[in-house]
Amino acid sequence: MFESAEIGHVLSPRDYRRDLPDLRRDLLAAQYELLHQGGRAVLVLVHGGDGAGKGETVNLLNEWMDPRHLRTEAIGPGEHDGRPDVWRFWQVLPPKGHVGILFGSWYTDPIADRVAHRDDEDRFAHRLERIRQFERMLVAEGVVLLKLWFHLSKKATRERFKALQADPRTAWRVSRQDLQALRHFDARVRVAGDALRLTSTGEAPWHVIDGSDAAWRSMTAGRQVLDALRAALAAPPSPTPPALPAAEAEASSGLLAAQSYQRRMGHRRYESTLEELQGRLNGLMRRLGAGRRSLVVVFEGMDAAGKGGSLRRVVQAMDARQYRVVPIGPPNENERAQPYLWRFWRYIPRLGHATLFDRSWYGRVLVERVERLCAEPDWRRAYAEINDFEEQLVEAGAVVVKFWLAITPEEQLRRFEHRSETPHKVHKITPEDWRNRERWPDYERAVEDMVDRTSTRIAPWHVVASDNKRWTRLAVLRILCERLEQAVRD
Amino acid sequence: MFESAEIGHVLSPRDYRRDLPDLRRDLLAAQYELLHQGGRAVLVLVHGGDGAGKGETVNLLNEWMDPRHLRTEAIGPGEHDGRPDVWRFWQVLPPKGHVGILFGSWYTDPIADRVAHRDDEDRFAHRLERIRQFERMLVAEGVVLLKLWFHLSKKATRERFKALQADPRTAWRVSRQDLQALRHFDARVRVAGDALRLTSTGEAPWHVIDGSDAAWRSMTAGRQVLDALRAALAAPPSPTPPALPAAEAEASSGLLAAQSYQRRMGHRRYESTLEELQGRLNGLMRRLGAGRRSLVVVFEGMDAAGKGGSLRRVVQAMDARQYRVVPIGPPNENERAQPYLWRFWRYIPRLGHATLFDRSWYGRVLVERVERLCAEPDWRRAYAEINDFEEQLVEAGAVVVKFWLAITPEEQLRRFEHRSETPHKVHKITPEDWRNRERWPDYERAVEDMVDRTSTRIAPWHVVASDNKRWTRLAVLRILCERLEQAVRD
Repeated sequence: MFESAEIGHVLSPRDYRRDLPDLRRDLLAAQYELLHQGGRAVLVLVHGGDGAGKGETVNLLNEWMDPRHLRTEAIGPGEHDGRPDVWRFWQVLPPKGHVGILFGSWYTDPIADRVAHRDDEDRFAHRLERIRQFERMLVAEGVVLLKLWFHLSKKATRERFKALQADPRTAWRVSRQDLQALRHFDARVRVAGDALRLTSTGEAPWHVIDGSDAAWRSMTAGRQVLDALRAALAAPPSPTPPALPAAEAEASSGLLAAQSYQRRMGHRRYESTLEELQGRLNGLMRRLGAGRRSLVVVFEGMDAAGKGGSLRRVVQAMDARQYRVVPIGPPNENERAQPYLWRFWRYIPRLGHATLFDRSWYGRVLVERVERLCAEPDWRRAYAEINDFEEQLVEAGAVVVKFWLAITPEEQLRRFEHRSETPHKVHKITPEDWRNRERWPDYERAVEDMVDRTSTRIAPWHVVASDNKRWTRLAVLRILCERLEQAVRD
Repeated sequence: MFESAEIGHVLSPRDYRRDLPDLRRDLLAAQYELLHQGGRAVLVLVHGGDGAGKGETVNLLNEWMDPRHLRTEAIGPGEHDGRPDVWRFWQVLPPKGHVGILFGSWYTDPIADRVAHRDDEDRFAHRLERIRQFERMLVAEGVVLLKLWFHLSKKATRERFKALQADPRTAWRVSRQDLQALRHFDARVRVAGDALRLTSTGEAPWHVIDGSDAAWRSMTAGRQVLDALRAALAAPPSPTPPALPAAEAEASSGLLAAQSYQRRMGHRRYESTLEELQGRLNGLMRRLGAGRRSLVVVFEGMDAAGKGGSLRRVVQAMDARQYRVVPIGPPNENERAQPYLWRFWRYIPRLGHATLFDRSWYGRVLVERVERLCAEPDWRRAYAEINDFEEQLVEAGAVVVKFWLAITPEEQLRRFEHRSETPHKVHKITPEDWRNRERWPDYERAVEDMVDRTSTRIAPWHVVASDNKRWTRLAVLRILCERLEQAVRD
């Protein structure tokens, strides 16, 4: 992997001085054009051996480009607070039109943990597979990824440290950790080589840069960044889906039609069971708060299916300090400038806490699919991305509970009419609700696909026939209790 | 302060049941109307003694209102990372149209620190004065503040703990901390009484609620929240400033005219001095990184005054992992829904780090004043708010360095024309720049007022005559070095 980076490439000071002004001008021009175009983000990952010039290169890039539209983040070792490893990287993704530099990245921990034997080979391979999926998603969402690895041979590293130590003005730059790291040099090179090999994909290849000569290294890195900026500029924007959707021809699988919509529930039995279930949930939430788990609940359903009412019966049993309710509507300006999962990652709870989503990331394969708000390839790949997202939540300790509240078109009509006639409910019904209703078969089809493709063992869908409000609320509470009981037992 | 809360108010269960449905309906209706209107935010602070029903009330409010548009934050004791105490509260302010509940708030630490004698009387008074200023600003920015203090007498608290302990199902609710707190009960009541007295202002009074009877307490709190929502709805929106501004009649103070714009600087002397100053700054930044200080730099100036160029010469001397550059343009959707200082608080650096602002919070008293983007009372009160903001930064360890880069109208014209004629600079000039130029006297006047009113001993303005780019860049670097040297010495 690193052989060609040990050849000892050199760029003469004269050539460097000759080429630099052009490179700087082109970098700046490309950066401004990207900002102006606003189509894609560029993310540069900087990795490599100690003393191979990572820090110097990052500083140079900041000098050559406009630092006002460039954000550099230094990534230290992660802390586990119950959020998936990748959570903190979502927080620092550059928005469209911007350039981000990550000094260390999602590769930092997996490589360090493997070198130190905290992870075995299988776990290491699993983490790299996750990274591949994550990067594939980023690229599909329009992020141009540039992965740079600065390499210096063991001999050259030792010599560089010696030279630095010999000069009192630079001796501080060599830490005890650097010298210790030298002892694991071979293991680190071996592990890094595996990591680079397994994650050099077509959409996000690694570029290994010989770090021995400063001029060569800087010029090479600068040109790589320029190439990435130009790739971002050249890439066509996401295709706009046709404005007038054709009707979906495919037949329904019958999943929703097969539910039992006839269930009824008397007032008194409802009240007493509600109280009993809420008490049970309250106790379970207290155990959750004390333990190593978190809770993510998703409420989806057609308009007027009773999402809000069910959600309120659930949070009534919880302590307000422990949960957060997140209603999901159309994305705002900041959210549109990021990959679509970005706005959901922000609300992932830490250990002991819960987030309840009123609508969710499933909007991608429901409303965005049916209303043609995104292109077909985008919602088609979303199923796998969502499964991957939820798998990460579960692995990090979350209990993921997803409800589809299924009502019949007849019941929806009854509720719409009731809302239109009830003064304090009239705000809950909009012309859009009536429009959505006309696409019922398309939505039905989308829901069935969604359940088929994203109901996994670790994060199953719970389809609840919801024509009766009381019955629905109790069913939701009961399922939630059962899922939590099971999680607490495990 | 608490006498009337020890009377033992009681609401009969019958009355509670009778009044509750109306209250809930009104709360929901007011909440939705607020959300729809989007004019103001409501922030409820919940404080009081242990066992006085704070937690129960917060949970009830979440049950009565729509939890999707209500955010509850539990505030624990603060950690010092070099950001002012109030920083973390800025992170959780509700946007316009929303309701936030803070369980604990900016009162938590000052009261606890005074009870435990970590703060003396003077420091306590100083922190309360800060709080008064902060709340005055929030209210002026359109936040309706409701401050609730739940009180229970010492005797009643002791009895409540005994009752809870007697029942095995509730014994867990009484912690050792609760029992210890009982020993400091009198001191706590005394300190809290002082705090409430000193911060019960006209715009943000405290409401003390007798916590002994659950029905009384809940109904009273619910009605207070309803009153706050209605106050938010009734308050007129901020007056819209007149669309066509009149010319400012006031005369210039001559501050800008008095600068020496004739300075020149040769290329060779520039290069060698630049290198020397950047080396000096680099060493100072390393000391900053190791120490208990942070750095906030503000670049302001007319269009084409050289802010970007000076900023780049500064960050060239810094490590990219240590600083962040924040360009400030017109506020986006999220930012417009918050008090105007909100978006700057987000970027306040932690200890050892630096943030450089290319334009800043001074936009309020410059562009917003001149272009009439905010009403006169709003920019007039901004001077004091900004001084207060910067004082907090300095108290928390920041070195605050503010540059006004002053150019003459003639030099600006030369630069505009040069930009229009240079292909790779043409993007830097917009029709707006030409328009702003027409208001030069108004801007001049605003700058002079700004410097007069916000150049303080702890955060002075550095007005740099900037007709010569080289001279400007060196002056900026020199001033920054001097300010840092002074700070490191202190």
